Amino acid sequence: MQVGKHKFTTIWLAPENQRIIRVIDQRKLPFEFEILQLAKSEDYFTAIRDMVVRGAPLIGVTAAYSVYCAALEAKEEGLSLDSIYAKAEYIKTARPTAVNLEIAISRQLKAIQNIDSIDEIIKISLAVAEEMRLEDIETNKAIGRNGSGLIEIIAENKNGAPVNILTHCNAGWLATVDYGTALAPIFEAHNRGINVHIWVDETRPRGQGAKLTAWELLNENIKHTVIPDNTGGHLMQNGMVDIVIVGTDRTSVNGDVANKIGTYLKALAAYDNGIPFYVAAPSMSIDFNLDTEKEPIPIEQRNDREVRYIDGLLNGKVKEILYVPEGSPVANYAFDVTPSKYISGLITERGICKANKEKILELFPEKK
Amino acid sequence: MQVGKHKFTTIWLAPENQRIIRVIDQRKLPFEFEILQLAKSEDYFTAIRDMVVRGAPLIGVTAAYSVYCAALEAKEEGLSLDSIYAKAEYIKTARPTAVNLEIAISRQLKAIQNIDSIDEIIKISLAVAEEMRLEDIETNKAIGRNGSGLIEIIAENKNGAPVNILTHCNAGWLATVDYGTALAPIFEAHNRGINVHIWVDETRPRGQGAKLTAWELLNENIKHTVIPDNTGGHLMQNGMVDIVIVGTDRTSVNGDVANKIGTYLKALAAYDNGIPFYVAAPSMSIDFNLDTEKEPIPIEQRNDREVRYIDGLLNGKVKEILYVPEGSPVANYAFDVTPSKYISGLITERGICKANKEKILELFPEKK
Repeated sequence: MQVGKHKFTTIWLAPENQRIIRVIDQRKLPFEFEILQLAKSEDYFTAIRDMVVRGAPLIGVTAAYSVYCAALEAKEEGLSLDSIYAKAEYIKTARPTAVNLEIAISRQLKAIQNIDSIDEIIKISLAVAEEMRLEDIETNKAIGRNGSGLIEIIAENKNGAPVNILTHCNAGWLATVDYGTALAPIFEAHNRGINVHIWVDETRPRGQGAKLTAWELLNENIKHTVIPDNTGGHLMQNGMVDIVIVGTDRTSVNGDVANKIGTYLKALAAYDNGIPFYVAAPSMSIDFNLDTEKEPIPIEQRNDREVRYIDGLLNGKVKEILYVPEGSPVANYAFDVTPSKYISGLITERGICKANKEKILELFPEKK
Repeated sequence: MQVGKHKFTTIWLAPENQRIIRVIDQRKLPFEFEILQLAKSEDYFTAIRDMVVRGAPLIGVTAAYSVYCAALEAKEEGLSLDSIYAKAEYIKTARPTAVNLEIAISRQLKAIQNIDSIDEIIKISLAVAEEMRLEDIETNKAIGRNGSGLIEIIAENKNGAPVNILTHCNAGWLATVDYGTALAPIFEAHNRGINVHIWVDETRPRGQGAKLTAWELLNENIKHTVIPDNTGGHLMQNGMVDIVIVGTDRTSVNGDVANKIGTYLKALAAYDNGIPFYVAAPSMSIDFNLDTEKEPIPIEQRNDREVRYIDGLLNGKVKEILYVPEGSPVANYAFDVTPSKYISGLITERGICKANKEKILELFPEKK
């Protein structure tokens, strides 16, 4: 997507050196735009843990490249093939909630499991990572097409007035390789000339809405307004939201949705006000092995520092200010689970379905 | 209440000079503790508008003193008595949602309406303001006693484990003259030896929870944890909240509650999880003339800057950082309305009642 006058994706193989993967460093956006190189397994782990890259789909693709990197290291450092598996297990611990991480690693390990030649493993793991990168782009384009239909139907009844769409966190192109999940239908609707206006939840504690979603929409020239996370309910009560679209870090096979903390509160408000609430859920974010009637989705707790300190721009530099008295404890749950009953539907790459096991498996029968 | 080793109220007549009212400047708390003087009508207006003083009860008492100040100015500057009424009308526009502001002004104007002597008006308006100040303290003590009974009942079933109470914004002593509204039952329960732990919503955009409520609880040595506003729903889903208690800026006679933006979302989550949701509502915050079936509660929109910039401590000084890209519009609705059906009860100075017209008027029959 657009960054100023240039088109970018979030992750790519360096064209001049196949040893190196490049990513956009998302930590200082929108104030600073930097490209980082990932060259060692450690780089991948810290990039995922520290949210240089974030968003379930992008985490998955990054993890896929990490297996390629581990294979390169095995060759370069004369390590056993076991080292690849050990590093793959380790990287899964970098972020516990996003199921894409597990799925990407499993897919890589399955692809190389019966191969003995390290050169062959390097070749295959690169091919799988590249394939997953391209699949993510195609998946998101399909979600964009499928979801934009929902927006179009609303637009037909608005006589040219903007369709007001609320989103939480960043499920835009920065959360994926390109196009995004929740924002893909918005980009597509905008490209098709539909008048849209986006309410952007700022998304404390890390501010991915205020910082990343707003920045994406600015770059694509899409009308939007940043609001504190507390605001959405009031807007919905007053007819100022036509539809809510969010992403997901892990959706259980029975349709419960783990997404950024606070998503559940917006789902309740949408339900209370009869506003459609959709989740853009690429199949890579659906955990077909997890039935939340039997076991819960693991919820990551992150560092206190993300709540206690807030970073933003001061005199042209990104600085961090203290927001909570030093003596006060804080808690930082990164995700919550929205029960399927509050979800109008899942927007997948194969179409839109109700958030329940039967309908999800109808769209993805091979997962039965 | 305690500030370090000293006891404070939020507003008081300077003991050495009856011309001056002193207030705690709440804008730089918890990082800087400063006392400001209010000596001119303009000082009162800006103190209320700029939230040097905030919280519906404290706004009311401050407004009451402003009429006394206007009377002093009428004498000092040789102005007509009409000037007092004009200034009183003007100060009502400083904050539109808090009904206490209107009530305090009405009470003052009623007290002086048939008096011609400026000296007499000065004397009466000071007496009324002082009376309202003391009434607020007594009201909050009574709310503390009434509400702490709710906490005590929960504690009886917890075998010594802490009663987990979630609160939004600051309805502590800083929002009143002393003791607070929503926090009064907590202070009282703590004083009676009940083990309590408070989940403190940080309360974007201005952070009154992270900054003021946390600071109050620290000073009173009460266990607490500051959380992003997005977090409460997840805690409630997981059995980590026993009761929610919030304040109110204006409660309609039929029990709908205007309070800090985001309150409605917490009420929905409490309702969804069967958790009691109480509103500490001194009768001064109940608008007995407003039936929300007929007209809405006015909702204040505040300056964009409060959303776009965030202030906190950097290298020992309070600094403001930019949090939203410069080109992105923002919106800043200060309050929302929680429908009475989601409210377990109102904690008033006369006891606890259901949030409906019949029960409210049973407690306050003189308002019929």
